[in-house]
Amino acid sequence: MALLSPSRRLRRTPFSDGVEAAGVKAYTVYNHMLLPTVFRSVEEDYRHLKEAVQIWDVSVERQVELRGPDAGRLMQMLTPRDLRGMTAGQCFYVPIVDETGGMLNDPVAVKLSEDRWWISIADSDLLYWVKAIAHGWRLDVLVDEPDVSPLAIQGPKSDELLSRVFGDGVRDVRFFRFGVFDFQGRDLVIARSGYSKQGGFEIYVEGSDIGMPLWNALMEAGKDLDVHAGCPNLIERIEGGLLSYGNDMTDDNTPHECGLGKFCNTHSAIGCIGRDALLRVAKEGPVQEIRAISIDGPPVPGCDRWWPVTSEGTVVGRVSSAAWSPDFDTNVAIGMIRMTHWTPGTVLDVETPDGTRRATVNRCFWI
Amino acid sequence: MALLSPSRRLRRTPFSDGVEAAGVKAYTVYNHMLLPTVFRSVEEDYRHLKEAVQIWDVSVERQVELRGPDAGRLMQMLTPRDLRGMTAGQCFYVPIVDETGGMLNDPVAVKLSEDRWWISIADSDLLYWVKAIAHGWRLDVLVDEPDVSPLAIQGPKSDELLSRVFGDGVRDVRFFRFGVFDFQGRDLVIARSGYSKQGGFEIYVEGSDIGMPLWNALMEAGKDLDVHAGCPNLIERIEGGLLSYGNDMTDDNTPHECGLGKFCNTHSAIGCIGRDALLRVAKEGPVQEIRAISIDGPPVPGCDRWWPVTSEGTVVGRVSSAAWSPDFDTNVAIGMIRMTHWTPGTVLDVETPDGTRRATVNRCFWI
Repeated sequence: MALLSPSRRLRRTPFSDGVEAAGVKAYTVYNHMLLPTVFRSVEEDYRHLKEAVQIWDVSVERQVELRGPDAGRLMQMLTPRDLRGMTAGQCFYVPIVDETGGMLNDPVAVKLSEDRWWISIADSDLLYWVKAIAHGWRLDVLVDEPDVSPLAIQGPKSDELLSRVFGDGVRDVRFFRFGVFDFQGRDLVIARSGYSKQGGFEIYVEGSDIGMPLWNALMEAGKDLDVHAGCPNLIERIEGGLLSYGNDMTDDNTPHECGLGKFCNTHSAIGCIGRDALLRVAKEGPVQEIRAISIDGPPVPGCDRWWPVTSEGTVVGRVSSAAWSPDFDTNVAIGMIRMTHWTPGTVLDVETPDGTRRATVNRCFWI
Repeated sequence: MALLSPSRRLRRTPFSDGVEAAGVKAYTVYNHMLLPTVFRSVEEDYRHLKEAVQIWDVSVERQVELRGPDAGRLMQMLTPRDLRGMTAGQCFYVPIVDETGGMLNDPVAVKLSEDRWWISIADSDLLYWVKAIAHGWRLDVLVDEPDVSPLAIQGPKSDELLSRVFGDGVRDVRFFRFGVFDFQGRDLVIARSGYSKQGGFEIYVEGSDIGMPLWNALMEAGKDLDVHAGCPNLIERIEGGLLSYGNDMTDDNTPHECGLGKFCNTHSAIGCIGRDALLRVAKEGPVQEIRAISIDGPPVPGCDRWWPVTSEGTVVGRVSSAAWSPDFDTNVAIGMIRMTHWTPGTVLDVETPDGTRRATVNRCFWI
């Protein structure tokens, strides 16, 4: 693995002191900020995530805040998902598209009230897009990055840990809903969500000053639950089919190509900027789509570039994420495959840096 | 130094194979792409840059291309610098500001023709801002990221090296101008510019496929000139007062605070989005400004967060970049200092991770 040079530009988070004390071994950079990637080892972190409970510094999910009378209108302009039925207290996974229907980000929108939203973003400066749309359309809305840093609690013991710090009320928060809970006299939004399939919560920590007090309180409360610092786990997220913007999709892709057609209501999402461009693809379907792919052989190396997927020498797709899965005893991967070869069971070749491997298109993700 | 986990999201460049073969020791991440930071050591790279010639993979300077009848109008909307006198063949350093006058990026604009521009960007997704402004204002212009990756040739022997590959004509290219030169049948834009004070060029390599052929041709041609792979050098850029977006300034800062008032023509830059917001600061001047700062004592550690600058216990500014300079025998630094304490010669305290150090506000940068 390469070394990462320190600089102010790669922002620390309110939890960085805790992350370092917990022995972080590697980072990635995400939204100009440090995101831990390994604590003990990717495999150990994976096992522990599935069995216990972890605290994740996901401050890199920066918030874009919309505030004002046009906040709701602006939010609908950004996404082809119909937001009319969404009520305050709900979180929606929303593809964000440009005027051509290309994906700009795949965040979670948090509706705090009719005129106040947070967009919890993936790795691109969505703030710039949203601010400029608001400006160009003369909308009556303030757009900003507030001092909010999400802290995720993930794993089967998440409910137990969180109830010890916030009370049993957190157990009642439903999936992709949020409640407001007190910590040291401060109101914090806590949603049942997160970038794993092991269950858990995301705490929207408002105010950097309470970052470490909260981190320490959770660590202390979870000692007997074997709580440990963790981070989004490469193996687990591929098994679960959790896409990563910039890895598995870019602004070249439509939501439909990313298997996100179910979040596109191109007929009813009135006002969405990319709606017209997406109408045709919604009707005819995409010509390539994200697929779960099993790659044969021993553990593959790190996927740091697109690996071509071929059939009889012709490129029919590419793999963008891959890892060895101990639980499924195969290399699990995510790739974009052309419709001629995306049928489950299709056998293909993947050109990895270690040579060509046999691969199979799966019916669905592993979990 | 921490480790950096590989992933497709941290994009490789057309020159990555060459960078690896040259023994890159560390990276940073910039515009979702790998930027080398160290080859031999920061000090050795520094010495070599000042004495010989280096080839820098600065593909991370992604281009935002504007094409169409409204390209010039859009370009002027983005910056408070008056572009009316700019002719095709020129490069301008242009602060880019939002509607509040906050800096969104500090790129170099390359005017290819009246209706075609490249914006060679610093570390933020300026593409999103520009695309959304074009969309919101219904401008007749295409905005895109083309397959263009800059390769910089920097150091006192740059003219000699480049003339061997492109002919003596490159010697006639003037500062911040460009010419078009042939390489293997392809037209390449070559500008006399770059992120060092040692002289040199930036080649806008259009087409990833010729990246490594060009890299190899330059390496081969420069053997007796002691050519080596290099990268923007932390020490040299601080000595020279070359600011770094995200380190030394953010969208909280106006161009005037960054000492870029000379690039702001708030009275004549008609159409600039942030013009109104900047009129007052242009008239009254900023209350804080970038300063060169000498820090006493032994070499400071890496500056990975803002270091508070104080006077008698009161915070009066912050340091954002710092390094030990062998040539000036002091720690050189860049900081933002309030007007009450920015007079050259003012002695202040800087709170580094190694403890409080005495520091002095300089009259100007070191070179």
